[in-house]
Amino acid sequence: MAPALDGNPLTMNREVELIEALTCDLPHRPDTVLGSGDDCAIVKSSPDRDLLLKTDAMVEGIHFTAQEDPVKVGHKAINRLLSDVAAMGGEAGSVLVTIGLPRDFQMDWLQSFYKGMKEVALRHHLALVGGETTHTSGPFFCSIAMTGLVSPGKAVLRSGARVRDAIFVSGTLGGSLAGKHLDFDPRLKESQWLTKHFEIHAMMDLSDGLASDLRQLCHASQVGAEIWADYLPVSRDARLRARSGKTSKPPLAAALSDGEDFELLWTLDRSQAVALKDAWKEAFPDTPLSCIGKVIEQPEIYLKDDQGLRILPHHGYDHLQQS
Amino acid sequence: MAPALDGNPLTMNREVELIEALTCDLPHRPDTVLGSGDDCAIVKSSPDRDLLLKTDAMVEGIHFTAQEDPVKVGHKAINRLLSDVAAMGGEAGSVLVTIGLPRDFQMDWLQSFYKGMKEVALRHHLALVGGETTHTSGPFFCSIAMTGLVSPGKAVLRSGARVRDAIFVSGTLGGSLAGKHLDFDPRLKESQWLTKHFEIHAMMDLSDGLASDLRQLCHASQVGAEIWADYLPVSRDARLRARSGKTSKPPLAAALSDGEDFELLWTLDRSQAVALKDAWKEAFPDTPLSCIGKVIEQPEIYLKDDQGLRILPHHGYDHLQQS
Repeated sequence: MAPALDGNPLTMNREVELIEALTCDLPHRPDTVLGSGDDCAIVKSSPDRDLLLKTDAMVEGIHFTAQEDPVKVGHKAINRLLSDVAAMGGEAGSVLVTIGLPRDFQMDWLQSFYKGMKEVALRHHLALVGGETTHTSGPFFCSIAMTGLVSPGKAVLRSGARVRDAIFVSGTLGGSLAGKHLDFDPRLKESQWLTKHFEIHAMMDLSDGLASDLRQLCHASQVGAEIWADYLPVSRDARLRARSGKTSKPPLAAALSDGEDFELLWTLDRSQAVALKDAWKEAFPDTPLSCIGKVIEQPEIYLKDDQGLRILPHHGYDHLQQS
Repeated sequence: MAPALDGNPLTMNREVELIEALTCDLPHRPDTVLGSGDDCAIVKSSPDRDLLLKTDAMVEGIHFTAQEDPVKVGHKAINRLLSDVAAMGGEAGSVLVTIGLPRDFQMDWLQSFYKGMKEVALRHHLALVGGETTHTSGPFFCSIAMTGLVSPGKAVLRSGARVRDAIFVSGTLGGSLAGKHLDFDPRLKESQWLTKHFEIHAMMDLSDGLASDLRQLCHASQVGAEIWADYLPVSRDARLRARSGKTSKPPLAAALSDGEDFELLWTLDRSQAVALKDAWKEAFPDTPLSCIGKVIEQPEIYLKDDQGLRILPHHGYDHLQQS
């Protein structure tokens, strides 16, 4: 669930309640491996492949504005779902694109949007196999449906974190609105490398902000987490935005709560942490890797900084001071 | 592509041009069997199953109104795609539901909508495996993504019609707005029976109206068709609506041009026509079956009635008199 960029979004709590109310008692089939609640659903496909299924939507004025480059909006439309496929340890399959067109849509804009989507599809060996077009009296929307592929039983879920696991994130966090939210590269190769070389216990992608997403991972795994402020990889954009006055959020709060980082968050046995750091540096010398905390038994998220250990509130990190 | 129910829809011609402009040079993969342009895309999945992929969208005010029963709107949302899976000769697989919520959405309405979708999923052994929720400043929309299953090489395409084939439709046509558009049963079992017992050359479902859909099937097959007015199965609703003055369309025009019939249209070798009629009567005694014409070489659609044979225009059948 992506955060709304404008005011008055579906708040996380209300959204979680809503989804839970709607998705209880969903009909399954014998080939359903995993239904709703993770980055992708999983369906049995063949003896050597499971199928990942994911949909997502973007609405003008919520996930992008009319002023933004339509080619980049097209990139984002597809990359958001590739990030979910990456979060399961999968590889890209096929994609379908459904668009709702306002009466005054611009053909040039739409062609640039498709150009962006095709560029990403080519880059990630994704087949664009169709979709649907309809009218809307509201703003432009697109809804993307994607399949991914993963070896049977090898998809990494949110629910596998174990007490004393080390918690890792790729890249840097916060300030995505400065541009990264339109212009990121989904962590497909990193995720495939991770699942090939290490036993990853739980993984998800960061779309709602670290604090919120980590809470979901912990909830799915029935554990808690302690995160260490000093080790959070605060992005340069989060610092610049704070310094320039574009946001009143201190950089640490931005790293914890800004949405649309599209980085990976995962846990693995702490005995593997050093080996992972060494191997990552070899494999991805240009991509930061941070061990940001550990999994604990008590089902809360704690933040550890200069002032000690405190429970991270469910909402509102803006009051947090940079440590 | 469903027709808009309100005024000012995307006209068929403009929509076809738009789709063609956007979907040229789409990236494919070695596992892509069929990309855009048919009722579903086809992707290789396992040695004994191909995967059908389809998406669709419905927007309040276009495909349904706020006054309509949300349970039935939920039925329609899923059944529209099941009708596309049926059109390929496939069976239902899994479905994901993406919804765009206006700020003033009603939780009761949404729960009834989901109730409707779950009912259809249970009835047709379809797994509801997730989806996505977002906000919109416009009207409510939903976008449905569905997988279907079919034996490799057994999917029936639009492009297989051959000159001198007999053309068949199931059920009756026209007047769907009187209620059937919300309350139809997709022709899954009929389609599976057809492909099991007969060599169906080409098939599609009727969503835009017979004349328009048949034109698409003929275009895909590089053939034309001659249809016989006396044999068109005009629905009771089309006749009632004409008689009551709810529409100015004569019943024949309604059967040719009304959208959302969600019946099957197919062709097979004319030598099989009588055997099909006999076997159908045994298998589906309550469902009308009509042989409505034949496939011809010249790439036009002709209508044969009391006044002779004439080319059916691309747009506007309202002037046609009931024969």
